Amino acid sequence: MNYKIDYDRVKRIGFPEVIYGASKDIATLLSITKEIYSKHGKVLITKLQNSKYQEIKKEFPNSFFDEISGICILGKIKKSRKKKPEVIILAGGSSDEFVVNEAFYTLSFLSINVEKILDVGVAGVHRLMNRESEIRKAKVLIVCAGFEGALPTVVGGLFPQPIIAVPISVGYGVAEGGHTALNSMLSSCANGLIVTNIDNGYGAAIAALRILNI
Amino acid sequence: MNYKIDYDRVKRIGFPEVIYGASKDIATLLSITKEIYSKHGKVLITKLQNSKYQEIKKEFPNSFFDEISGICILGKIKKSRKKKPEVIILAGGSSDEFVVNEAFYTLSFLSINVEKILDVGVAGVHRLMNRESEIRKAKVLIVCAGFEGALPTVVGGLFPQPIIAVPISVGYGVAEGGHTALNSMLSSCANGLIVTNIDNGYGAAIAALRILNI
Amino acid sequence: MNYKIDYDRVKRIGFPEVIYGASKDIATLLSITKEIYSKHGKVLITKLQNSKYQEIKKEFPNSFFDEISGICILGKIKKSRKKKPEVIILAGGSSDEFVVNEAFYTLSFLSINVEKILDVGVAGVHRLMNRESEIRKAKVLIVCAGFEGALPTVVGGLFPQPIIAVPISVGYGVAEGGHTALNSMLSSCANGLIVTNIDNGYGAAIAALRILNI
Amino acid sequence: MNYKIDYDRVKRIGFPEVIYGASKDIATLLSITKEIYSKHGKVLITKLQNSKYQEIKKEFPNSFFDEISGICILGKIKKSRKKKPEVIILAGGSSDEFVVNEAFYTLSFLSINVEKILDVGVAGVHRLMNRESEIRKAKVLIVCAGFEGALPTVVGGLFPQPIIAVPISVGYGVAEGGHTALNSMLSSCANGLIVTNIDNGYGAAIAALRILNI
Amino acid sequence: MNYKIDYDRVKRIGFPEVIYGASKDIATLLSITKEIYSKHGKVLITKLQNSKYQEIKKEFPNSFFDEISGICILGKIKKSRKKKPEVIILAGGSSDEFVVNEAFYTLSFLSINVEKILDVGVAGVHRLMNRESEIRKAKVLIVCAGFEGALPTVVGGLFPQPIIAVPISVGYGVAEGGHTALNSMLSSCANGLIVTNIDNGYGAAIAALRILNI
Amino acid sequence: MNYKIDYDRVKRIGFPEVIYGASKDIATLLSITKEIYSKHGKVLITKLQNSKYQEIKKEFPNSFFDEISGICILGKIKKSRKKKPEVIILAGGSSDEFVVNEAFYTLSFLSINVEKILDVGVAGVHRLMNRESEIRKAKVLIVCAGFEGALPTVVGGLFPQPIIAVPISVGYGVAEGGHTALNSMLSSCANGLIVTNIDNGYGAAIAALRILNI
Amino acid sequence: MNYKIDYDRVKRIGFPEVIYGASKDIATLLSITKEIYSKHGKVLITKLQNSKYQEIKKEFPNSFFDEISGICILGKIKKSRKKKPEVIILAGGSSDEFVVNEAFYTLSFLSINVEKILDVGVAGVHRLMNRESEIRKAKVLIVCAGFEGALPTVVGGLFPQPIIAVPISVGYGVAEGGHTALNSMLSSCANGLIVTNIDNGYGAAIAALRILNI
Amino acid sequence: MNYKIDYDRVKRIGFPEVIYGASKDIATLLSITKEIYSKHGKVLITKLQNSKYQEIKKEFPNSFFDEISGICILGKIKKSRKKKPEVIILAGGSSDEFVVNEAFYTLSFLSINVEKILDVGVAGVHRLMNRESEIRKAKVLIVCAGFEGALPTVVGGLFPQPIIAVPISVGYGVAEGGHTALNSMLSSCANGLIVTNIDNGYGAAIAALRILNI
Repeated sequence: MNYKIDYDRVKRIGFPEVIYGASKDIATLLSITKEIYSKHGKVLITKLQNSKYQEIKKEFPNSFFDEISGICILGKIKKSRKKKPEVIILAGGSSDEFVVNEAFYTLSFLSINVEKILDVGVAGVHRLMNRESEIRKAKVLIVCAGFEGALPTVVGGLFPQPIIAVPISVGYGVAEGGHTALNSMLSSCANGLIVTNIDNGYGAAIAALRILNI
Repeated sequence: MNYKIDYDRVKRIGFPEVIYGASKDIATLLSITKEIYSKHGKVLITKLQNSKYQEIKKEFPNSFFDEISGICILGKIKKSRKKKPEVIILAGGSSDEFVVNEAFYTLSFLSINVEKILDVGVAGVHRLMNRESEIRKAKVLIVCAGFEGALPTVVGGLFPQPIIAVPISVGYGVAEGGHTALNSMLSSCANGLIVTNIDNGYGAAIAALRILNI
Repeated sequence: MNYKIDYDRVKRIGFPEVIYGASKDIATLLSITKEIYSKHGKVLITKLQNSKYQEIKKEFPNSFFDEISGICILGKIKKSRKKKPEVIILAGGSSDEFVVNEAFYTLSFLSINVEKILDVGVAGVHRLMNRESEIRKAKVLIVCAGFEGALPTVVGGLFPQPIIAVPISVGYGVAEGGHTALNSMLSSCANGLIVTNIDNGYGAAIAALRILNI
Repeated sequence: MNYKIDYDRVKRIGFPEVIYGASKDIATLLSITKEIYSKHGKVLITKLQNSKYQEIKKEFPNSFFDEISGICILGKIKKSRKKKPEVIILAGGSSDEFVVNEAFYTLSFLSINVEKILDVGVAGVHRLMNRESEIRKAKVLIVCAGFEGALPTVVGGLFPQPIIAVPISVGYGVAEGGHTALNSMLSSCANGLIVTNIDNGYGAAIAALRILNI
Repeated sequence: MNYKIDYDRVKRIGFPEVIYGASKDIATLLSITKEIYSKHGKVLITKLQNSKYQEIKKEFPNSFFDEISGICILGKIKKSRKKKPEVIILAGGSSDEFVVNEAFYTLSFLSINVEKILDVGVAGVHRLMNRESEIRKAKVLIVCAGFEGALPTVVGGLFPQPIIAVPISVGYGVAEGGHTALNSMLSSCANGLIVTNIDNGYGAAIAALRILNI
Repeated sequence: MNYKIDYDRVKRIGFPEVIYGASKDIATLLSITKEIYSKHGKVLITKLQNSKYQEIKKEFPNSFFDEISGICILGKIKKSRKKKPEVIILAGGSSDEFVVNEAFYTLSFLSINVEKILDVGVAGVHRLMNRESEIRKAKVLIVCAGFEGALPTVVGGLFPQPIIAVPISVGYGVAEGGHTALNSMLSSCANGLIVTNIDNGYGAAIAALRILNI
Repeated sequence: MNYKIDYDRVKRIGFPEVIYGASKDIATLLSITKEIYSKHGKVLITKLQNSKYQEIKKEFPNSFFDEISGICILGKIKKSRKKKPEVIILAGGSSDEFVVNEAFYTLSFLSINVEKILDVGVAGVHRLMNRESEIRKAKVLIVCAGFEGALPTVVGGLFPQPIIAVPISVGYGVAEGGHTALNSMLSSCANGLIVTNIDNGYGAAIAALRILNI
Repeated sequence: MNYKIDYDRVKRIGFPEVIYGASKDIATLLSITKEIYSKHGKVLITKLQNSKYQEIKKEFPNSFFDEISGICILGKIKKSRKKKPEVIILAGGSSDEFVVNEAFYTLSFLSINVEKILDVGVAGVHRLMNRESEIRKAKVLIVCAGFEGALPTVVGGLFPQPIIAVPISVGYGVAEGGHTALNSMLSSCANGLIVTNIDNGYGAAIAALRILNI
C-alpha cells in the first residue's frame, strides 16, 4: 500500500484518522482498514456504501454498520460515563436521519453521551418549545435541516449553547442539493451559529468533540 | 410620446397601469404621469428615486412621496371602509421597511385597510406568538424577510391565511441580493406559501388585491 | 416510531399533515401512514414512487394512486358541492401533467371543485384566448409551465384572479431543472403573480385552499 | 498607435470594423476613430459614454450621438432605398430603449430601412395582435425584452420571420442583469428563436444584415 | 386525448407542429403521432429515446429513426430541388454528431438541401481554412461546438453568412452541460452571431428555415 | 419608535441584542441606540459607516469607534480577568483586518481575553509553525482568510481546539466576494472546522462566547 | 470514416493527436484508433470506459489499460533516459488516483520520467515537508487536490518550480464536482500557480511536456 | 507595524515578496513598502490605485507607475541580457492592456526580456497567422483574452510553447466579470493550456519566471 497513515493525529489534534469510504475502491479500503485496526484496535468509516460493507463484514464479522448513514465501526467502543447528554442532535423529521445518524454514531465512537430529537420541525414551532428544559441540559447542540434550513435559526434564538448547524440535501427544486439550507444557516439573523458542509454529520461530531475538549 | 397607455387594464384585470419609476428618464416619466393622471385622476409610481421625485413635485406639489420605499402617489385616495385590517404586513426589523412600505402604500392607494407589524423576527419567536390573536384577524398576510428568510416559514406553521412571502435584499455574504431569502421561502417546509420576486412589495400588494377580490 | 404526528395542524392552519413520500423508507412510510389513517380516516401522500406504492397497496387495497404525479390517497373523499370550478389549472402540454395532477388530486382530496385545461401553451396564444369566458369563472387560477415559463405572464395580463404560478422542471440546456421557468415567473412584467417552488403542485393546491378559505 | 485596423473585413464578411467604445480610453479611441474615418469616411462607435463623446465632438462637430444608447456615428450615411421596413424592432416599453436604439442606429448606419414599435409588452397581448399586419410586412424581426423576457416567445408563435431575440438588463431581484430574460429566450417553447448576448442591440443589427444579405 | 393539435401553425408561421419526444409517455406519444400523421401525412419527432421508438416502429414500420440524435421521421419527404447546399452544418468532431444530426434530419424533413462538415475544430484552424470556398457557397451556416465553443467565433470572422451557433453539452469540469460553450458563443467578439439553446439542433434548423423563407 | 427591543435575550441566550448598523438610517439608529443604552448601560453597533458614526459621536462623545471594521462601542467595558488569551484570531495579512477587528472588539465588548496574530498566511507555512506553542494556549481559534481560504485547513490539521473559520471578501476574479474562501472552508479535508458567513467577524465572536460558556 | 486525422500536429505543436474516449461510440473509436495506429505505431486514448476497452482489446490484445484512470495505450513506448524524475505528481490520498494516473501514464506515453507521491495532504502538512529535498529535484510539479484544493497553495509557498495545479471532482456538498478546488487554486495567495480544468490529468501532462521542451 | 515580511521567499521559491496594493490602506502600504525597499533595494506593487500612488510618489519621486495596470516599481531594475524575447504576450485589442501591462512590467521587474503583440484577435485569425515566425521565437507565450476567450485555444493549436492563458474581465452580459473567458480557456479543446485567475497578469508573469528557471 502506498498510502501512509497519519498516526500522529491523535496526539496532534485529539482524534484519530478516519476513513472516508465513498470514493475508495474495496481493495484500498480493506488495506487501510486493516492497518488502522491493527494499530488502534478500532476504526470509523464514513459514507460507506452497503455493497462495500458486505466485503468488510467478511473480514470483520463483528463490525457495526448503520445502513441509513453508511457509518461503519470496527472494534470495541467505550461508553461515555457522563449521566447527562453532552450533545443533543435536533432535526425536523425522518428524512434527515442519514445525516443525524452519521453524527450520532461518530459521537458514540468517540465515547460521547449523545441523544437525538427528530420531530421538532419549524412548521410546528410549539413542538420545539415543549422540549425546552430537556434541550437546555446538553452542552452542545447539533441542528440538522434540509429544505429551507430554518430550524437552527429558531434554535439559536432560544438557546445559549454552541449550535452546530448542518444543512441537509433533502428537498427538490431550489432546495435540491442542500445549498438553500446551507446559505440560510450561514446568513441567519440568529447570532453565533456555526455551520458545516452539506450532509457533514461527521464534521459536526468532530466539531462537538473539539468544543467538549476545551 | 410613442408609448400607449393600457387603459383597458382596470376592466380586464381589476387594477390600473402603474408606473415603474426606476429605469425611466424624467422626460418620459413626466409625460406618462400626466397622461395617466388626466385619464384616471390618480397615479401610482414605484421605485422612484428621490431626485426624480423633485421634478414631479414641481408639477404636482400635492403629491405624496415616501422616501424609504420610493413610492409616489398622485391624486386623492379613498380610504377603506373596512373596520378590521384586510392585510397585515409582518417583518423582522427596521431594515425591511423599504419593501414593507412599498406594499403598505400600494395597498393604501388601492383603498385597502392595511397594518404593519415590524418587530417579529424569528431570532425571538415569542414576539410573534404574543401577537397571535391580532394577526389572526387579517384576511391576508404579507411576510417580508431578508437574511435567511425564515419568518414566512414560522408564520406558515402558525396561521391559516394566504401568506405572501416577500424576500428582501438585506444582508451580506451569502445573503447579498436576497437570493438566500428567496430560495428559503420557495423551499419552505411550511405548506402553501406563495412567493414574489426579491423586494417586490408592490407585487405582493397586487397579489393581495387579487385575493381579496375573489 | 419516534416521529410524533402534528395532529393540531387542522385546528391551527386549516389542513391536516400530509406525508412527503419521496425520501422516506417504506417502513417509516407505512407506520406514519397507518397512524394518520387511524386518526383522520384519510391520508394524502405526495411524490410517492410506484415501487413504494405497491407496498402500501398491500395494506390499503382500496387506495388511489396516480402514477404520473405520484399522488396516493387513502380513505373516502367528500366531493365538492360547488357547481362551478373553484380552481382551474392551466398548462401548455402533456409534459406538464406530473405537476398538474399533483395539484389536481390534492385539491380533490381537500373537497375543492377543480378542472384542468392542458393545451393553452403560449406558442399559440389564441388557444388561450378562445377559452377566456370559461377561465373567468374560476375563483383561483393555478398556471403551470416549464421551458421559458411564459404562460403565467400572459394569463396575468388577461385575468383578474389570484394566479399561482408553478414552474416545472421540463426542458433541457438552460431550462434544465426548471430554474429558468421559476425566475421568469418571479420577474414577470404581469402584476401580482405569486410563485411556488419548482414542481410544487401540492404547495399550489394548499395556497389555493388558503385563498378560498378567506 | 500599436493597433492595426482590420480593413479587410468588409470584403471578407460584408461589414466594416466597428469601435467598441465602453472600455477604451479617450486617446486610444480618438486615434482609432481618426484612422478608420480617414480610410472609410464613416465610423460607428457603440456603447460610448457621454463624457467621451464630448471629446469626439470637438474633433467631429457634425457627428451624431444618441445618448440613450451610446451610439455615435461619424460621416454621411446613405438612406435605404427600400419602401417597406426590412427590419422591425419590437419591445415592451420605454425602459428597453437603450438597446432598441443601439440596433436601430446600427441598422441605419448600414443603410437598412428599419422601424420600431415600443408598446407591445406581453402583459397586454392584444396590443401586439392589433398590429399583426404591420409586423408581417418586415423581413426580419428584432424582439427586445427585459424582466421575464416573454415577448419573443409570443411573437415566435405568431409570425414566420427570422426572430432575433435580445435580452435586456432591465429588472431587479432575479431579473437583475438580464440573465432571466436571456435564459427565457434560449429555452422558449416557440420554435427557431435565435438569441444574442444581453443588451447586444448592435449584434442583433449585424445578424439582421447577415440575413438580409443572403 | 385531451391535447389539441395546433393545426393552424403552418399557415401562421410556416412550419408544422413537431413532437418533443423526450418527456412524453408512450401512450400520449402514439396518440399524438397518429393524429398528426392522419392530418399531415408526415411527422417529425425530436429527442426520442430508442426504447420508445421501438413502440412507434410497430405501428409505423417504414418510419426513419436516427439513433444518434433521436430524430424520428414518419411519411414521405420531398427532396430539395436546389443544386447547391442551402445550409452547411459545421462541427469539430464526432462527439458533436448527436446535435449535428438533429439539425440535419430536421432540415431534410423540411425539404432543404443540407450538408455537414465534421472535422474543422479550432485546435487545427487550417482545416477550416482549407474548405473556405466550399463553405462560402451555402446561404446559412449552422456551427456546433462543445467544450470552449470557439468554432463559431472563428467562422464568424471569416464568413459573411448568417451564423447560427449551437452550443453542445460535450465536455467535463467547467464545460459540463454546455454552459461554457453557450456563454462563449453569446459573448463572441465576432459580430452578429445568433445562438440557440444547448443541444438545440432542431431549433437551429427552424431558424435556418425562417431565414431561407425571407 | 415602532421597534421593540428584545431585552429578554441575555437571560435566554447569554448575550444582549446588538445593533446591525449597515442598513439603518441615522434616525432609527440613534433612537434604538439610546433605548438600549438607557437599559443596559452599554451598546455594540456592527458594520457602522464612518459618516453615521459622526452623528452618534455628537451624542456619545466618549464612544469608541474602529474605522477599519466599523465597530462602535458605547459604555464602560469590563476587562477580562483571565491571564491567558481565551481566543486567538489568526489571519494571513493586513487586508483581513476589517473582519479580524470586528471579532476582536466584539470579544473585548464581551469581556473575553483575546489576541490577534496577523502574519501567518499559508504561502509561507513555516511562519504559522514557528508560533505553535503560543497558539496551543488559547481555548478557541478564530481563523480568517480571503482569496483561496486555505489557512483554516492547515490550522485544523495542526491544532486540537475548536476552529471557527471566517471567509473574507478579499480577492478578485473567482475570489471576488469571498465565496471561494467560504466553500474552501466548508469542504476542508481538515476535520471539524465550523464556518460563519463571509466577513462575519461578529458572528465568530458570538460563537466563541457560546463555546466558552459551556 | 468522415473524420480526418490532424497528422500535422506533431510537427506543428510537438505532440500527436490523442483520442478522447468518453463520448465516442465504439465503431468510431475503433476506426480512428486503427487509422492513427497504422500511421504512428502508437496511440493514446483518454477517459475510456472499461466496457469500450474490452472491444479494443479484442483487436489490440497487447494494449495497456489502467482501469482507475481510463487511460489506454497502444504500441511500444520508449522509456525516458533521464535518471532523475522530470515531473513529480503530488496528491493527498487514494481518492485522487483516477486523475493522478491519467497524468502519470500520459507522461509515460510521452517518454518522460515521472514519479508520484500520494500521501501529502494538507491536513498533515509535516508529511509534505518531510519530503522536501526529494520534491526539489523534479523540474515540474503537478499537484492534484479535491475537496478544498489547498495543497497547490502550500506547495507553491515552498517550492520554486512550475506548479501545474489540477482540481479533482472528489468531495460532496459545496465540493461536489470539483469547482471549489478549482476556484481555490485559481485564487491562491501563492504566486504563479497555473491551473487546468477539473480532472484534467491529461492536460497537465501536455502542459508539462510543453514546459520541458523549452 | 505588526506584519512580518517573508524575506526568506527569494531563497525558497526564487522571487521576492510583492505587495498587493488594492486592499491596503495608505499607511500600511507605505510602511511595508519602506521596509522591503530598505532590505531589497527594489519593490513591486500590483493593482495600485492612482490616488494611493500619489502618496508613494511623495516619498519615492523616482518610482515608476503605469496607470493602465496599476503597476508601481521602486528601485533600479537590471535589463535582461537576452537578445530574443523570452516571453511574448498576445492579446486581441487595446481593451486588454490593463492586464497585458501588469504581466509586462512584472516580467521587466524580474529582468526578463518580454514583448507584446496586441492586435491578434480571433475575429480576424489571419492577423495571428501573419506573425507566426515571430511568435515561434519566444520561449513562453502569455495569451490574454476577454469576451469569449477564444484566442488561447487558437494559439494552442498553432504553437508548441507553454501557453499561459489569462482571462480578462472585459465584456458585458454573460461575459461580465471574465468568467466566460476563464471557463472557455479551462475547457479548451487545444491541449495543455494552463490558466490563471481573471485579470491576473502578475501571476502569469511569475508562472513564466518559474518556467524559465527550470
